[in-house]
Amino acid sequence: MTRTPLTDLDEVQLLDTTLRDGEQMPGVSLSPGEKVDVARELDAAGVHLIEAGSACTSAGEREAIRQVADEGLDATVTSFARGVKRDVDHALDCGVDGVNLVVPASDKHVETKVGSTRDEVVETTVELVEYAKDHGLWVEVLGEDGSRADLDYLERLLGAGLDAGADRICYCDTVGAADPERTAAVVSRLADRGPTSLHTHDDLGFGLANVHAGLKAGADTVHGTVLGVGERAGNVALEEVAIALGESYGVDTVELARLYRLCRTISEATGVALPPNKAVCGANAFAHESGIHTDGTLKDGTMYEPYPPERVGRERRLVLGKHAGRAGVKAALAEHDVAVTDDELREVVARVKELGERGKRVTDADLLAVADDVRGRERERHVELVDLSATSGGNLPTASVRLRVGDDERVAAGTGSGPVDAGLEAVRTALAGDGSDDEGAGGGVAFDLDSYHVDAITGGTDAVVTVEVDLSRGDRSVSVSASDADITRASVVGMVDGLDRLLAAEADAADADPGAVADD
Amino acid sequence: MTRTPLTDLDEVQLLDTTLRDGEQMPGVSLSPGEKVDVARELDAAGVHLIEAGSACTSAGEREAIRQVADEGLDATVTSFARGVKRDVDHALDCGVDGVNLVVPASDKHVETKVGSTRDEVVETTVELVEYAKDHGLWVEVLGEDGSRADLDYLERLLGAGLDAGADRICYCDTVGAADPERTAAVVSRLADRGPTSLHTHDDLGFGLANVHAGLKAGADTVHGTVLGVGERAGNVALEEVAIALGESYGVDTVELARLYRLCRTISEATGVALPPNKAVCGANAFAHESGIHTDGTLKDGTMYEPYPPERVGRERRLVLGKHAGRAGVKAALAEHDVAVTDDELREVVARVKELGERGKRVTDADLLAVADDVRGRERERHVELVDLSATSGGNLPTASVRLRVGDDERVAAGTGSGPVDAGLEAVRTALAGDGSDDEGAGGGVAFDLDSYHVDAITGGTDAVVTVEVDLSRGDRSVSVSASDADITRASVVGMVDGLDRLLAAEADAADADPGAVADD
Repeated sequence: MTRTPLTDLDEVQLLDTTLRDGEQMPGVSLSPGEKVDVARELDAAGVHLIEAGSACTSAGEREAIRQVADEGLDATVTSFARGVKRDVDHALDCGVDGVNLVVPASDKHVETKVGSTRDEVVETTVELVEYAKDHGLWVEVLGEDGSRADLDYLERLLGAGLDAGADRICYCDTVGAADPERTAAVVSRLADRGPTSLHTHDDLGFGLANVHAGLKAGADTVHGTVLGVGERAGNVALEEVAIALGESYGVDTVELARLYRLCRTISEATGVALPPNKAVCGANAFAHESGIHTDGTLKDGTMYEPYPPERVGRERRLVLGKHAGRAGVKAALAEHDVAVTDDELREVVARVKELGERGKRVTDADLLAVADDVRGRERERHVELVDLSATSGGNLPTASVRLRVGDDERVAAGTGSGPVDAGLEAVRTALAGDGSDDEGAGGGVAFDLDSYHVDAITGGTDAVVTVEVDLSRGDRSVSVSASDADITRASVVGMVDGLDRLLAAEADAADADPGAVADD
Repeated sequence: MTRTPLTDLDEVQLLDTTLRDGEQMPGVSLSPGEKVDVARELDAAGVHLIEAGSACTSAGEREAIRQVADEGLDATVTSFARGVKRDVDHALDCGVDGVNLVVPASDKHVETKVGSTRDEVVETTVELVEYAKDHGLWVEVLGEDGSRADLDYLERLLGAGLDAGADRICYCDTVGAADPERTAAVVSRLADRGPTSLHTHDDLGFGLANVHAGLKAGADTVHGTVLGVGERAGNVALEEVAIALGESYGVDTVELARLYRLCRTISEATGVALPPNKAVCGANAFAHESGIHTDGTLKDGTMYEPYPPERVGRERRLVLGKHAGRAGVKAALAEHDVAVTDDELREVVARVKELGERGKRVTDADLLAVADDVRGRERERHVELVDLSATSGGNLPTASVRLRVGDDERVAAGTGSGPVDAGLEAVRTALAGDGSDDEGAGGGVAFDLDSYHVDAITGGTDAVVTVEVDLSRGDRSVSVSASDADITRASVVGMVDGLDRLLAAEADAADADPGAVADD
């Protein structure tokens, strides 16, 4: 595809407002330490400006902004300030480089919200810009609800800000009400007056479309938040702005290879989950399940991807389910060193599809169980859960397990922060062995629990809970899921089944090449 | 704002492919019954075309498509079919109204994936269109990976389909690689040849921007999936297409007031959670937390909303947190019949902000606890958890509780499907009372658990789990959250605390108007 230029610029600056607009999202609150961590990641990715918070909010917020400002980041660090002198003073007090000065622009905001007049707002804005500039601040003037403002007035208001010395002005689609035509009409007027930023929201889904229209109309800077966190439907997602501009127009913004890492950092800090079907950061963004797609992707990685996952710091993933095809299943079996004949493969594919149709995610353990069965291999359990009991609710959650390890039976108890944690501890203790000679074949069995995940539980206390665990021993890893209305049982069954699979794979490898262990 | 026309059309048709493209999302699988339920909801909302699945996938899939086709819906029901006769036969076998015939369009797909030539693909396409039309099907020809195809060839291929009798052709941005300029360039050529649909994906975040560009270029139908479920970053979200076209351009699509209901149906069927910050369907889409926003919204509902929540079948929600202001807190207290003086309000706001800063979601129970404390009210517990013990992991999860109810102490045990469910049962039993005279003040206390929610658990078995419950008794309801590394404890504590709040509110109401109960 040939590229159509979107803007004359080689680079568009990004202002990240995750720490301000993003943090206004209901239920999100970051401690000063978390704000500093997020700011460091943003800075490392090359974000140009970081709005660290709103200094007027509280003493705690000011402390957080101060700490970010003191980090010595490359990015310009700013604070949000309403159109009152006190807010600018609070910002100065935090030692920031600049302020995002927000003044009402639409009549609804000028009259109903603030109870002021157009003229008064212009007057105050000019005074505050001069005051902030006198105190050495970089100043951006934002006309709140600008997309719904009278355009002549908006231009007069923001133009007065520029004339008073502001460094830039911002087109604010505060409530996400504008379409691309409106954005283009407003931004082209503003950009004629001076450097213009875009602040867009996603209430109509037009967040990125409006960034596109605004840059085309002459803006040079984009406000966004990582994951699009923010009030209501959120702000435009910074990672989407970056990848869209980079891939489609060759316009630089931030370091793309750090985008995924950035998304995970913000997800962990805010508690906002990564939606599976979200560009750049979703678990499925580079996953391929359906037969056609997997087959095509195995032939050529670019077949079903617009750009390689490595570009944003990720890897491709093939997953199995009801749309599984021969190529995908064969590749997945090969990853576990399992070779099958063509007839066996056909049968494995049919069974995997059947599992998928029952609404089940087909994990490694499921695939291997199917392959064993199809190949007529007696499933020899290396580790098996015989009994499990856990107590919780009181001060010392405790669990006990009885495991069959080879021909041996082992019983152990453990405590933990909850019943699941205690169950894991009991399993570990049972498998650690006591070093004596009569431990049987298993001996001490160590393993790592690489991840433990439970999907959100809704629908009542008797809902079936699905637990997904990733376990590893040495170079081998396995994914398992287990479902039960009892979360304790689902968790421990998943762990034991996964461990069993790892031990089976080790035994198979040793059988296939008995010299390997002894000689190397 | 004045509206710029996007298209000459008053109405744009929507083809929903949630049941096909959406279901190809890894981990998603719908049973025939679920497919029928989803199709009914789509039909009730007025979706024009429903792609019910891909008939070639399996016998189970054909059964599901057949059931949807037999529903007698107003919508045109179709099946996906690859460019092979067998697929069209499978579709016919299911009794659908039409087929979405997908043929490779880019050289990558023609040569590498299918191992064919441009001429061969045109020939096969013509044959299959004629075959499908001869069998009475409505036919749409989709050029797979069309956005990356040679434009002259794409026009030749799809034009040949139209000449052979196809009802429409589709611009497919299969891998979500196109920008709006490319979309406009391709669609304007196709739309000159005949009725053109848009099939866009969101890998660059341009899903809706490309719909916008494509409609402007002459397309008249849009493919989408509810919630944007689909492979990788998913398809364009149908609910965003509908609200954007309706709000911005006055273009009709489906019944907007059913959009939220539709989103919840698809979320429940697929297990894909509603992201909190998603347009139309997110929990926060019409929620307001920050002081400025809440204050403005209380003055005028449209202050911070692009359109009223009722338009998509929802309600506005004010929530409390670190950005809470006086107006929002006062309104929230009033909902629970709590009146405070100005001084008290100031103190309550400060404490609510403090709670919010600690990263806590401020629930009804938190707010009421703060208000009690500020007003110097001794917190008189109506119900209190004294002891809790639960066993799980075995065949019969069991829990016991000791509760203080007024001056009385009650002990009860219960069983359930897991430790939490057993805990709830024990609480219910303890509160039901035995009907004897010495039950104390509480007597029998019934309550409804309206919702029980646990956020996804990640980060290990010792992660702190936050449980959110909504409880109600009669007209009163309350939201509570509780956190603990022990999920059993967090759940039962939350329930008991919520119940305590409901009983306190009842007692207060009876005190304030002692005649109310006796007289009415």
